[in-house]
Amino acid sequence: MSATPPLYNTIALVVRPNTTGIEEPVRDVLDFLKQGGFSVVLESDTADHLAISDIPSMSVQGIGERADAVVVMGGDGTMLGIARQLASYDTPLIGINQGRLGFMTDIRQEDMLPVLGRILGGTHKAERRTLLEGRVVRDGKAIFFGTAVNDVVVSRGAGAGMVELSVDVDNQFMYNQRSDGLIISTPTGSTAYALSAGGPLLHPTLGGIVMVPIAPHALSNRPIVLPDSSEIVIEIKRGKDITVNFDMQTFASAAIGDRIHIRLSPHTITFLHPEGWSYYNTLREKLHWNEYPSTDGKI
Amino acid sequence: MSATPPLYNTIALVVRPNTTGIEEPVRDVLDFLKQGGFSVVLESDTADHLAISDIPSMSVQGIGERADAVVVMGGDGTMLGIARQLASYDTPLIGINQGRLGFMTDIRQEDMLPVLGRILGGTHKAERRTLLEGRVVRDGKAIFFGTAVNDVVVSRGAGAGMVELSVDVDNQFMYNQRSDGLIISTPTGSTAYALSAGGPLLHPTLGGIVMVPIAPHALSNRPIVLPDSSEIVIEIKRGKDITVNFDMQTFASAAIGDRIHIRLSPHTITFLHPEGWSYYNTLREKLHWNEYPSTDGKI
Amino acid sequence: MSATPPLYNTIALVVRPNTTGIEEPVRDVLDFLKQGGFSVVLESDTADHLAISDIPSMSVQGIGERADAVVVMGGDGTMLGIARQLASYDTPLIGINQGRLGFMTDIRQEDMLPVLGRILGGTHKAERRTLLEGRVVRDGKAIFFGTAVNDVVVSRGAGAGMVELSVDVDNQFMYNQRSDGLIISTPTGSTAYALSAGGPLLHPTLGGIVMVPIAPHALSNRPIVLPDSSEIVIEIKRGKDITVNFDMQTFASAAIGDRIHIRLSPHTITFLHPEGWSYYNTLREKLHWNEYPSTDGKI
Amino acid sequence: MSATPPLYNTIALVVRPNTTGIEEPVRDVLDFLKQGGFSVVLESDTADHLAISDIPSMSVQGIGERADAVVVMGGDGTMLGIARQLASYDTPLIGINQGRLGFMTDIRQEDMLPVLGRILGGTHKAERRTLLEGRVVRDGKAIFFGTAVNDVVVSRGAGAGMVELSVDVDNQFMYNQRSDGLIISTPTGSTAYALSAGGPLLHPTLGGIVMVPIAPHALSNRPIVLPDSSEIVIEIKRGKDITVNFDMQTFASAAIGDRIHIRLSPHTITFLHPEGWSYYNTLREKLHWNEYPSTDGKI
Repeated sequence: MSATPPLYNTIALVVRPNTTGIEEPVRDVLDFLKQGGFSVVLESDTADHLAISDIPSMSVQGIGERADAVVVMGGDGTMLGIARQLASYDTPLIGINQGRLGFMTDIRQEDMLPVLGRILGGTHKAERRTLLEGRVVRDGKAIFFGTAVNDVVVSRGAGAGMVELSVDVDNQFMYNQRSDGLIISTPTGSTAYALSAGGPLLHPTLGGIVMVPIAPHALSNRPIVLPDSSEIVIEIKRGKDITVNFDMQTFASAAIGDRIHIRLSPHTITFLHPEGWSYYNTLREKLHWNEYPSTDGKI
Repeated sequence: MSATPPLYNTIALVVRPNTTGIEEPVRDVLDFLKQGGFSVVLESDTADHLAISDIPSMSVQGIGERADAVVVMGGDGTMLGIARQLASYDTPLIGINQGRLGFMTDIRQEDMLPVLGRILGGTHKAERRTLLEGRVVRDGKAIFFGTAVNDVVVSRGAGAGMVELSVDVDNQFMYNQRSDGLIISTPTGSTAYALSAGGPLLHPTLGGIVMVPIAPHALSNRPIVLPDSSEIVIEIKRGKDITVNFDMQTFASAAIGDRIHIRLSPHTITFLHPEGWSYYNTLREKLHWNEYPSTDGKI
Repeated sequence: MSATPPLYNTIALVVRPNTTGIEEPVRDVLDFLKQGGFSVVLESDTADHLAISDIPSMSVQGIGERADAVVVMGGDGTMLGIARQLASYDTPLIGINQGRLGFMTDIRQEDMLPVLGRILGGTHKAERRTLLEGRVVRDGKAIFFGTAVNDVVVSRGAGAGMVELSVDVDNQFMYNQRSDGLIISTPTGSTAYALSAGGPLLHPTLGGIVMVPIAPHALSNRPIVLPDSSEIVIEIKRGKDITVNFDMQTFASAAIGDRIHIRLSPHTITFLHPEGWSYYNTLREKLHWNEYPSTDGKI
Repeated sequence: MSATPPLYNTIALVVRPNTTGIEEPVRDVLDFLKQGGFSVVLESDTADHLAISDIPSMSVQGIGERADAVVVMGGDGTMLGIARQLASYDTPLIGINQGRLGFMTDIRQEDMLPVLGRILGGTHKAERRTLLEGRVVRDGKAIFFGTAVNDVVVSRGAGAGMVELSVDVDNQFMYNQRSDGLIISTPTGSTAYALSAGGPLLHPTLGGIVMVPIAPHALSNRPIVLPDSSEIVIEIKRGKDITVNFDMQTFASAAIGDRIHIRLSPHTITFLHPEGWSYYNTLREKLHWNEYPSTDGKI
């Protein structure tokens, strides 16, 4: 690192709780960062569950206000949670995965120190991701607000038959849909629940919002990719025990007549990937796509 | 009708409640049957909601024990309900639909009298359908029994993330599955929820049981069609608020470790279709399949 | 129309050949345009097949150079063909459909005169659509160039087993794929072949390029939506009788080792829709999406 | 082995050509069989390509007439070819796979000697599989006959647009279909091309014939599973360069008006699996289904 002011000064560390054998790697990262001259802070819950008291700790809000980058040690779930909480700060996020690489946690624990060094030295691929924001409106009044990194999901309750939803986009009527529910997903979420329900993969650079019906009654109710500017309104026409989920965090008591308004959040999140990172490499590895041409007759 | 004893003597009538304008057609059917020399009974709820008191009424159980055939006026939902209740009697079922024809209610109201006449005279196509029976076993004890004409569905609660299910067939391990749930369907149910979730159509004559995962995490967890002899055991490994539904009738408090045993019921149901009825005609009409070859360039 | 110079002065007319009963509507349009003070020209083939000699005719190239708008009477296929030929001129296109409305031909013949009047008077919704351009490269030399409004398709020959394709995007390796072929589609093409092969609908305003594998061997080879900036290279690794199609126009002799380069065309096409036109209305009508909420129990 | 006459006396060996390093394992099998007192013969092509002259060789027909079992060393493709040729003899088939196990070649080369010993000693799981037979009828005359272990496929030529097919089953009209083609598959074929095109898995014990449209224009043209007794007739209504394939072996010059008749073959094939073999194990391994429950939060 040079004489010019470093890009990243204060680095926060967030670690997934209840992770067997994580103590030593965490200590390695802390030592590495301190030796590198960085100011290091721990997210409060992390400090608690790891019982580390020799490093200052602060709330997620404090991290958002003061940290220049956040290192997340854990899986995509851990990253998802912290990213949503930090959305309004857009603090850059770096993900280290103990086990199988994730879509968002793409640094292997065994390579982490040199890779972290290069990334924090400014040699990285920064990638911006969009988020969704939604509100549940009842009788003209917003009664719930939420933000989602992956998806907003309106879905039926357990054993409750289909829901019927009426969907408008930009004040234009789209359709009435009967299904198990409807997923509104970011490109980030397109590799998660939306994919299981039959949605396409969306390259993050394109942006867009994909709407994927879950087990729709009408076989022609196919996934549709909408522009980032779309204002989506989903009105609940029929159904029981309907929930609205933001990244699987639940608003659980939606009622007939409720309208869920969904649009792009004004905030974004930024991932710092190692140089040479490729979205297609991640897809290929996660989805077990074929790497090598067949060399025999077994096509 | 000839001097030989008639096939059908006592005819029961079941009518969907809250059906606008059904009184007159019901009266037409009653008159037609009485004039044809049949003994006619009303299902008790039908007698109640139509406020008909000049025709004897009886419980569904009574109908099962005494009626030679049941005429159902309503949609597939009405037929489904009565068919399940009559399963142990296998009383032949005839379905009349006021509106759009159903998969199981395939006689148009406007044609109903002559068609009924021919069917009850013995000129019909009888079609046997299989059913499923299931039981929920907890700590080695069966705590719930159910029968399904369409399907048994094990699924996640609202906003409750995926379930994880471990599936055995004939005491052989099949897989662990993470998904919104699993549909076990008869051929009859293959045109219902299983179809929405991506399952194939199963011709009723073949039989078989189709297992269709709902939004499975693993993209290779495809629908699989099993033999009628299959003994399926689904163990709940993870998940919250999980329900077990039999034709959308819910057993709602499944717990981790519960095992749901599903197999073919010893009972069957029999539909009496008008002569000339074709399963493919029904599919084509219900699924809007193309009837005519394109005669222009608009292929 | 006002004293300011009209937006549209010279209007070209293109009519689908072999269309029963089209003569009178064509004459109605011609009379209407002449009475409106427009200068009207016929596309040469249209003049020929309709045997109209009192209106000047010109080649498609001539139309591109001189017409201010093109009225197309026919179906989406006719529109597709003329749109591709006019791509480098971006002459606005207006589509009139005799029968069922198309995705691109969205004015009903019975309404055409007043609607045309309003559109040519400047009251319309102009919508820009992207195109793809591709070239087939063999031994480092481009041997074929093509443009597509809908899609570029690389696919196996008849009875020729799978193809194996190696796909790069922006010089990054994506995957080796074994399948019947690969569809690279615009948003316009997302309602055509790509939809049949399992692709999502892409709203034209978003843009993007969708890659849809046809019957892929690997079940995780899902449709993926890429940014407009993507440079896609498909190398043919294995297969027989492989063709490369641009809107179903065929380059038929692709060989092992050929590389097909696909990217957005620098050209676009513009549709003029009637005011009040909605993309979602078109989708709903074409895909038979449900318009009305269910009012009874038959969800 | 006991004093009772052995089940299997003459064993034929078929080996996939051009398989690197196969000579030694082949010699091991030959030695093992001879030492076990079996009479061993080689399929002629196998004898040729391996240049083995000290073992008697015979044609596939000869094998069908004289061998009691056939050992196939290779992949599913090799097994498929020999099984189709031996269909009229129903000689039991045993498959050994050098590399990744196949659906039909399910003995690992490293275990092959003890497993072969047990199977030929009568300790095995015999499994019967159905076949399809088809004929192409033009102007009332059959002009081509074929048999398929996996599937009969009617499909479009390269770059030839959709085909339009009219389908009858048991002399009942099913539908007109526009698509890339139609796959008629056995349970054996349900894990092959039919799966790639969106078909379900069919358990071999159930039987049945599955019809899977390839990229159908109508989104409701879903896979349908038909009874073994079905007589399917596919008439070609429109299309170019249409082929009819039997296990990818091609009849290449189908014409408009041709009718392809498909039904179950009177023949079957029998696989001898090692004891303890499970169809579900094979599916799980081949389709990468999840074996272990997730033990952490990463559901």
